[in-house]
Amino acid sequence: MDASGTAYEPGTTRLLSFQDVRPRFADGSDSPRAYLERCLEIIALRDGEVRAFVATNPEGARRAADAAAARWKAGRPLGPLDGMPLGVKDLYETEDMPTGMGSPIYAGWESHRDAASVYALRRQAGVVVLGKTVTTEFGFSHPGPTTNPFDPARTPGGSSSGSAAAVGARMVPVAFGSQLMGSIIRPASYCGNYGYKPSYGALNRGGGHSSLSQSHLGLHAGSLADAWAVAFETSRLAGGDPGYPGIFGSGAELPPARPPRVLARLDGPGWEIADGAARDALGAYVERLRAAGVTVLSRRDHPGVAALEEAVAPCADNSMTIIGWELKWPLAAYREKGEGLLSRSIADRLAQWETITIEQYRRAVEIRNEMRRRHAVLRPAIEGFVGLPAPGVAPRGLASTGNPIMNVPSSTLGAPVFTVPLLAQEGMPLGVQIMGYPDGDEATCAIARWMDETRL
Amino acid sequence: MDASGTAYEPGTTRLLSFQDVRPRFADGSDSPRAYLERCLEIIALRDGEVRAFVATNPEGARRAADAAAARWKAGRPLGPLDGMPLGVKDLYETEDMPTGMGSPIYAGWESHRDAASVYALRRQAGVVVLGKTVTTEFGFSHPGPTTNPFDPARTPGGSSSGSAAAVGARMVPVAFGSQLMGSIIRPASYCGNYGYKPSYGALNRGGGHSSLSQSHLGLHAGSLADAWAVAFETSRLAGGDPGYPGIFGSGAELPPARPPRVLARLDGPGWEIADGAARDALGAYVERLRAAGVTVLSRRDHPGVAALEEAVAPCADNSMTIIGWELKWPLAAYREKGEGLLSRSIADRLAQWETITIEQYRRAVEIRNEMRRRHAVLRPAIEGFVGLPAPGVAPRGLASTGNPIMNVPSSTLGAPVFTVPLLAQEGMPLGVQIMGYPDGDEATCAIARWMDETRL
Repeated sequence: MDASGTAYEPGTTRLLSFQDVRPRFADGSDSPRAYLERCLEIIALRDGEVRAFVATNPEGARRAADAAAARWKAGRPLGPLDGMPLGVKDLYETEDMPTGMGSPIYAGWESHRDAASVYALRRQAGVVVLGKTVTTEFGFSHPGPTTNPFDPARTPGGSSSGSAAAVGARMVPVAFGSQLMGSIIRPASYCGNYGYKPSYGALNRGGGHSSLSQSHLGLHAGSLADAWAVAFETSRLAGGDPGYPGIFGSGAELPPARPPRVLARLDGPGWEIADGAARDALGAYVERLRAAGVTVLSRRDHPGVAALEEAVAPCADNSMTIIGWELKWPLAAYREKGEGLLSRSIADRLAQWETITIEQYRRAVEIRNEMRRRHAVLRPAIEGFVGLPAPGVAPRGLASTGNPIMNVPSSTLGAPVFTVPLLAQEGMPLGVQIMGYPDGDEATCAIARWMDETRL
Repeated sequence: MDASGTAYEPGTTRLLSFQDVRPRFADGSDSPRAYLERCLEIIALRDGEVRAFVATNPEGARRAADAAAARWKAGRPLGPLDGMPLGVKDLYETEDMPTGMGSPIYAGWESHRDAASVYALRRQAGVVVLGKTVTTEFGFSHPGPTTNPFDPARTPGGSSSGSAAAVGARMVPVAFGSQLMGSIIRPASYCGNYGYKPSYGALNRGGGHSSLSQSHLGLHAGSLADAWAVAFETSRLAGGDPGYPGIFGSGAELPPARPPRVLARLDGPGWEIADGAARDALGAYVERLRAAGVTVLSRRDHPGVAALEEAVAPCADNSMTIIGWELKWPLAAYREKGEGLLSRSIADRLAQWETITIEQYRRAVEIRNEMRRRHAVLRPAIEGFVGLPAPGVAPRGLASTGNPIMNVPSSTLGAPVFTVPLLAQEGMPLGVQIMGYPDGDEATCAIARWMDETRL
């Protein structure tokens, strides 16, 4: 297996896809154990540079893979994910590995239990939990050591830095990430992955330390089929968050590709600061969509899209008010554990966040509700929204994980988003994102599949 | 201070109320330290029998009370709660005491942080965190050792057993409880307390281990004023759950009493199994309300009330489907820690819960939504709903914490409820509950105050 891939060209580097090899488990020409060993080999080759993992449990994974192999051989796999290696963002608890949350405060902390979604996949679906992946400090901005698998001088993005890089480097076929502002979709674009942020609440966050009202549990994957299958099975077995219905759909099988008739481009407040080359690439992609017969509306030709663009214009500041209020605890409690245990950047933010009042928070939630209303009214007319998943390819340097601005509208709206690795610049990957409507994940996935298969 | 109180008569046993003594802190005729010492004295006298606390931190509490006393003396208290002793249900984390959750699995577990609401009260409001109170196993049904402060042969109720008993025995003026089905209001009735279950999501549950979609954080208190003040300040400082607006109101001061014009009695599915004496007492109370000029509708004379009664009829079974689905994790993960660590009763339940499918869960949430719709439409016409907070006084025996059935409608509806200790039978307390509408806590509190002050 090729372990390099430092010069990215879309379509030429095939990411690790579990579903491609699964048919061979039954006839014995491949096995979950052999698949796992290939993952471990790539980790051994590349993780010294990429630094995607904070912890791995190869022996536990081998035992689990062997058990899965025996089930496949006996013709009784637990389901389509039996034997699939998984990376888990280090905000989510695992019974066999520590949960460090990217902070010295939790270094080595063991909860001795699996988070709800990890538990369901491991115990009921046969998934092989291979390792914990680097997160920024508490899933916010202060970066870990991970580098971009296509250029070690560039960021992999964040906060799901390790999950993005591990999948991008083909160390695992799939990894859990979580997104507050842009923590799944942006790093997925930077690392050439398929990224999937489900509808808000659609995957159970129990035992994950990301309970904010814009935090989403989601996936990085080497194929759309793997992303969908893992999300669907997680929801079916562990459910969504309490009170939420989970992911609707007919099964773990990737929904059939569906060519959209009417899309809109939602540029959002990030368009102004996006790279010229990235804007041109998205513009050209939209033209190819139109040439393929898709109507692509924009703020210039549809008043509802204009109203939505106008509504989401302040989404970054508004999200920071919401996040700041919701995140001041537990950060303030952690601050008292000792000088310097919080990063300077988060400590400074916290001091600002503590000046937010409940009245300001309520107002921000109301503003968010208005954004959601303007989005919801477009549902009968517009099937989805295309846009850039990041302002450009992964920026150089590791001190910042890049700007989440292109993802804040969908995080704010709680809407499902996929990013598909369709573009490239400077030898680096760039995705195209497609956003749908809350609880309409399957329909959005069908469009993403069409985008992936047509590769316009 | 009288520490007995084994023969309960409403109005004759004055529970410990912080607001009554607070005016004397400024002039030096009383102090938070002296107040705390009185609490500790009652705990020393009575907790051998009542067994409300699993842990106390008297030295830490004394230091905090002294600091509060100094602030009052200097004329600079942190607010109306400065120096107020608090009990905390042992599902909620405290930085200075373990969080055992009523389970051997968590015995002695230290999170080394305060839950969000505890943090805000301790650090920003000057509240004195005195101890952790007994909870049933993981806040579900398997009881702890706590006895009823008015009769040690009877249950204090649950799951907030220790909080109910500690307040009922006048060990603390206020204690956090949480309610999934009937875990605040029922034990408050059993122990002669003022109980307050706020609107769903109105008090921040971060760092509490009760994240289900019907779990509510709320209060047991010796006075309505203390219950309101603590809830309001908790919401103001810590907020509600992420995405929720917290408690609306003009301040921590108890809202003025408001005589209602139109109430309804919501008997619910528990009426059939309630004690005859309790039903008669509620019936007589309703007649006194009518004599005082309040219109009290019922299912017999209002079709909307009949429609609501009909909708909530299956709320107990429906709630169990919701709770079972949401609680199977983490319980299933805990089951694997070893034989016998879960109680037999919860292990048996868990086996049933694991057969629930996501489709059944979605249907149960839809049924709950329909109940909520039938409740919401009554808002313009009916100010609140009176009823029994329990099927009768605390039953004899400690093997069961009693039947939550009278509280399941309000837990299902997510509506605010107060219980006021207005009645008595067999020398034991019995409350009257008043339920309002989601986020209308202040209006409901104003009616509860009127009920408390008029004592019809």
